[in-house]
Amino acid sequence: MYLSACKFLDTSLAFPPEKLPLFQMYRWAFVPEVDVSRYSGPDNALIEGERECSPHVVRVVDGIQQRYGKVAVRPGYAVKPNSREKQQLTSPRTQQQLPPAVKMAAQTSRGVPLSTLSPKFLHTNSTSHTGPFSAIAELIDNAYDPDVSAKQFWIDKTVVNGQECLSFMDNGYGLDHDTMHKMLSFGYSDKPAVNGVQPIGIYGNGFKSGSMRLGKDAIVFSKSESIFCVGMLSQTYLQEINAQQISVPIVCFEQGETNNVREKHKTSLQDILHHSPFKTQEELLLEIDAISSSNTGKTGTRIIIWNLRRTSTGTSEFDFEKDRYDIQIPSYLYETLNDKPQQARVTSYIPESVYSLRAYCSILYLKPRMQIIIRGVKVKSQLITKSLAFVQKDSYKPNFLNKPIRITFGYNTKSKDQYGVMMYHKNRLIKAYERVGCQLRADRKGVGVIGVIECNFLDPTHNKQSFNETDKYRRTMNSLGTKLEDYWQEIRHKRSRENPDSLPVEDAMKRPDQNWVQCDECLKWRKLPDGIDCSKLPDKWFCRLNPDPQFRTCQIEQEPVDS
Amino acid sequence: MYLSACKFLDTSLAFPPEKLPLFQMYRWAFVPEVDVSRYSGPDNALIEGERECSPHVVRVVDGIQQRYGKVAVRPGYAVKPNSREKQQLTSPRTQQQLPPAVKMAAQTSRGVPLSTLSPKFLHTNSTSHTGPFSAIAELIDNAYDPDVSAKQFWIDKTVVNGQECLSFMDNGYGLDHDTMHKMLSFGYSDKPAVNGVQPIGIYGNGFKSGSMRLGKDAIVFSKSESIFCVGMLSQTYLQEINAQQISVPIVCFEQGETNNVREKHKTSLQDILHHSPFKTQEELLLEIDAISSSNTGKTGTRIIIWNLRRTSTGTSEFDFEKDRYDIQIPSYLYETLNDKPQQARVTSYIPESVYSLRAYCSILYLKPRMQIIIRGVKVKSQLITKSLAFVQKDSYKPNFLNKPIRITFGYNTKSKDQYGVMMYHKNRLIKAYERVGCQLRADRKGVGVIGVIECNFLDPTHNKQSFNETDKYRRTMNSLGTKLEDYWQEIRHKRSRENPDSLPVEDAMKRPDQNWVQCDECLKWRKLPDGIDCSKLPDKWFCRLNPDPQFRTCQIEQEPVDS
Repeated sequence: MYLSACKFLDTSLAFPPEKLPLFQMYRWAFVPEVDVSRYSGPDNALIEGERECSPHVVRVVDGIQQRYGKVAVRPGYAVKPNSREKQQLTSPRTQQQLPPAVKMAAQTSRGVPLSTLSPKFLHTNSTSHTGPFSAIAELIDNAYDPDVSAKQFWIDKTVVNGQECLSFMDNGYGLDHDTMHKMLSFGYSDKPAVNGVQPIGIYGNGFKSGSMRLGKDAIVFSKSESIFCVGMLSQTYLQEINAQQISVPIVCFEQGETNNVREKHKTSLQDILHHSPFKTQEELLLEIDAISSSNTGKTGTRIIIWNLRRTSTGTSEFDFEKDRYDIQIPSYLYETLNDKPQQARVTSYIPESVYSLRAYCSILYLKPRMQIIIRGVKVKSQLITKSLAFVQKDSYKPNFLNKPIRITFGYNTKSKDQYGVMMYHKNRLIKAYERVGCQLRADRKGVGVIGVIECNFLDPTHNKQSFNETDKYRRTMNSLGTKLEDYWQEIRHKRSRENPDSLPVEDAMKRPDQNWVQCDECLKWRKLPDGIDCSKLPDKWFCRLNPDPQFRTCQIEQEPVDS
Repeated sequence: MYLSACKFLDTSLAFPPEKLPLFQMYRWAFVPEVDVSRYSGPDNALIEGERECSPHVVRVVDGIQQRYGKVAVRPGYAVKPNSREKQQLTSPRTQQQLPPAVKMAAQTSRGVPLSTLSPKFLHTNSTSHTGPFSAIAELIDNAYDPDVSAKQFWIDKTVVNGQECLSFMDNGYGLDHDTMHKMLSFGYSDKPAVNGVQPIGIYGNGFKSGSMRLGKDAIVFSKSESIFCVGMLSQTYLQEINAQQISVPIVCFEQGETNNVREKHKTSLQDILHHSPFKTQEELLLEIDAISSSNTGKTGTRIIIWNLRRTSTGTSEFDFEKDRYDIQIPSYLYETLNDKPQQARVTSYIPESVYSLRAYCSILYLKPRMQIIIRGVKVKSQLITKSLAFVQKDSYKPNFLNKPIRITFGYNTKSKDQYGVMMYHKNRLIKAYERVGCQLRADRKGVGVIGVIECNFLDPTHNKQSFNETDKYRRTMNSLGTKLEDYWQEIRHKRSRENPDSLPVEDAMKRPDQNWVQCDECLKWRKLPDGIDCSKLPDKWFCRLNPDPQFRTCQIEQEPVDS
C-alpha cells in the first residue's frame, strides 16, 4: 500500500498545477485521523492539528540556493522575469530565471492563503452594469481594442436548440488557449497600444461583467491563425456541478485535426456539450465555421449568451419586435403615463440611445473605426458635433495637462430636453447628457446645450459609464459648467441683440449648422451645401447623389470632420 | 533518489490544498525534460507533450464509488451538503457526505481549468466606486449588517509609523479565521437576516471594493468571542512579492496564548510584519487591544487602510483640516469659479452630503440603528422627511408588489437647487437627489421637491449607488415622476388659490412642517411645539431643555417619527 501510494504520487509529478488540488482527495483517503467535520468550506487553510509543511519548503528553497547560488531577494520570495527573458530561457540558472509557475508555487507554498472566487461572484460582478447596453458595449470594446482589431462586429438574436440567445461576433485576431483563459479569468489585461490606438479595455473585466449581465451563461468560440478554441463561462453549469470556485471549461481544436481533441481537453469538452445548448462536437465546429463564412476575415470570435435576463413578468428584457433591425428596451417603460394610452409616447427627456441599441451604438465611438452590424443592418454612426446648431469651440487647459482639450458646444436640434455634456474617453462614450454647472440649478440656464469632450486624462469606472471622482474629474466638471454657462450667455446675448423679440434659443426651431449625410454604401460622411433640408433626403443616401461633384463617389476620402 | 522523492511526496500528503502548487516546483526539479520556455504564464494549462492524468482521476472516482456505492450524480460531480449536514458529519459515508474540499478537488481535478484572480483585479474592482464616500459606506454596512450587528462604528484618521491612515472600527461580533478568509475572498456572502433585519451586503464584495478604493493596502484586526485574527489585503505587498494571484496573509492568536502563533500562521505573520506598517507582533496585539478598550463591547473589528489615494498633486484626497471633526472632499473642487476668490462658495446645487462625510453619514440610513462616530464626534442622523415643508404622503402600488410602498414628498427648506428623490434600499441610501419626471425636463416643474422612498423590491448595483435598470426599476422611476408632478401641481395650485400673488413655492422661504431636534446625549429625536425657530436653539440640545414635559428626559422613548 505504502509503495503503491508512493508510485502513484510519483506519477502525479507530471500533473498540471490546476489538477493538484486532487491531492486533497488522497489526503482524506490516506490520512483518516483528519476530522472532516472541522473543514470550513471554501477556505483553504490548514485543518487544525495537521502536520505543517514549511520545513520542506524551506529545505527546497535552500536546495535551490545551494545549487544555483544565493540570490538577492528574501528567501522564498518570487521574482518574475519579464516575458522576453522567459522566452529565451531553456534551462534556469538562477532563481530569477525560474519559470513563473515555479515561483508562484514557491510563493503560495509559503503558507499564505489565496483569495478565492465564489461562483456567486459572477453575478456580483455583473451588477456593475445598470443596464444591458453598457454590458453589450463591453463586448464591442473587446473586439474594437487593438489586440483584436476587428473591422466588423455583428450583434444578433439567435435561437439554439429552442433557446433564445444573443450572439456577438467579430472578425478580429481570435484567441488561443492562453488568451481565452485570461478572458475567462479576472483582471488579466495587458492590451498594448498599437499604431497609437489606445485600448479601451484596461481592467480585464469587461467580458465577465458584460456577458453575465446579459444572461446566466456564455460560450465563446474563437478562431485564430493557429487554433480553434471554445470556452464557457456559465453560472448554470457551476450551480449544477455545485462548484465552490469558478471553473471555466476550455477546449482547443487544431486546424485540420478537428476530430482529434487532446486528452487534456476532453473533460472540458464533455462539460461544454453537457451544459451548453451545443450538444455535439459538430455543433461546436459549425459555430466556429460561422466565424469565417459570414464575414470578410478568416479569424474572429463569436460569443453566444443564453439564459438571457428576463423581466419580472418572465418576458425578455429586450423588445425584438418593435423594430426588427434593432434591439430595444421595451419603450412602454419610458412612456408618459396619461389617460390616453393611444397617445402614449416616450417622454421627451429620454434620449433614443437609452432604449435603442442602434442609437446607442451610433454614438458609442467619437470617431468610429469598426463597423457595427445589428441584426443584419449596419449602424450609421452619428457625428454628434455636426448635429448641433450654433456650434462653438472652446478649450480646457487645466494645469495638470500639457495641452488644451477641445470642447465643442452647440444646441441640440432635436429635443431641448436632452442636454448636457457627452463625455468620451479614448474615443469611447462614457457619460451621455451629463448635466453640468447651471444645467443643474433650478433656473433655465444651459437648457438645450450639448457639450462634447474627450477626457483621456480621467479614469473610467468599472462599468465605463462614469469616471472616478478624483480631483481632476471634479475640476473638469466644474470647468465644463463654467464654460457651458459662458457659451449659453453668449449665444443668448447675441440673439437678443440681433432680434430682441425672438424666442429663447432652446425653444426656437433650429437646424444643424452644417449638413452632413452618411453614404449607405461606403459609410463615409459627406458635407452637403447649406440650404439643403436633410430631412428631405432619401432614406438611403449614396455618394453618387452628392450635389458636390468633388465628393460624388465612394472612392474619395472623407473630408476632415473637424474642419 | 527515487525513494527519497517518494518519501518526500508521501509526506506531502499532509499538505494543505493551497500549498499544493508546490508540486509544480518538484515537477521542474525532477522532470528535466520539461521545456520551461513553453510555459505560458498565469495560465495553468498542461504543458504540451506532458503526460495526462485523467485516467488516474477516473480510477480514484471509481474507487470512491466502489467503496461508498454508486451515487445518483454524474461520476465526478460534486454535491455540496448544506452546512448543517456538514457539521454533523464526523466520517463520510457516501460521496454526498464528503467534505467540500474533497469534492472540489474531484471537480477541479476533472481537468477543467479554474478561473483565476490577478492582483490587478483589486484595483479593477475598486473602480466600481466613483467617490470615496461610497467606499466608506461599504465598510459601515459591513458593521451594520446583522452578522456583525455593531452598536457603534468609529471612523478616524490616524498615523502609524509616520504613515497617514484611515481607521474604521466596530464593536460587532468580530471574525474568526474562516469568516476573515471569506471577507478577503470574492463573492462569499451568506449573511442571514436576524430578527427581521435584512443584511445590506449581499454581494460579498464590499470590503474588497471599498477598502481598495480608499488606499492601496488594508489590514483587518478582529476580536471574536473565541479568537483574535489579523488579515491583510495589500496591493503593495502583492506587487513586492510579484504575486500572480491574490494572497491574503491571515494570522490567528488564541486568547491567553497570544505569544504562541501556530506554525501554519507563521509565514502569514512574517509577511504582515514585513509589508504592513505594523512591524512587531506586539504592535498587532496593541491594535487588537484597542478594539475592546475604547468601546462598550468586548469584540469587534478594526480596519486600517494605508497608502491612501492621493490627488494628482500628491495631496490627500480628503481635507482633514477644514473641519477637525469631519472628513471632507476639498471644497474648492466644488466652488463656483468667479473673479472674486474671496467670495467663492460651494455651488448651490451640490448637497453637503457630496463633500462632507458627516453629512453623508447623517442620511445614510433611513432609520439609523448603529451610531457612527467620526473623529470622536457622534454623527447626528437626519430625519429627512422631517426637514421638509408641505409634506404629503403618497403610495406606490405596482402590480408586481403585494402591498403599497409609501412615498413622502415635500419641499427642500434649505436649497431649491437640491431636489429629487432619495431612494433607500433596506434602510440604506442608494441614490440621493435623483431627479425624476418633470424634474428632468427643461421647464421649472418639480423644482425644489424632494421625494423619499424605500425600494426593497429593486436590486442595487455593485457599488450600491444605483439600481439595476430592470423593468421594475423603470416602472418605478416613471411612476415616481408622475407622482412627483402631481404633488408639485397640487401644492402650486393650492398656493395660488390661497394667495394668487405669492412667490413660487420653491422661491419662498419655507420652514419644515414640524420641528424635530436631536438630543446630543441620547440621540433621540424630539418633536418641538410649532412656532419654535429651530435655528435659535443651542448647538447642543438635550432632552432636559424640552418645553414639552412629557419628553423632558432621555429615559422616555422616542415618539414614532412617521406619526
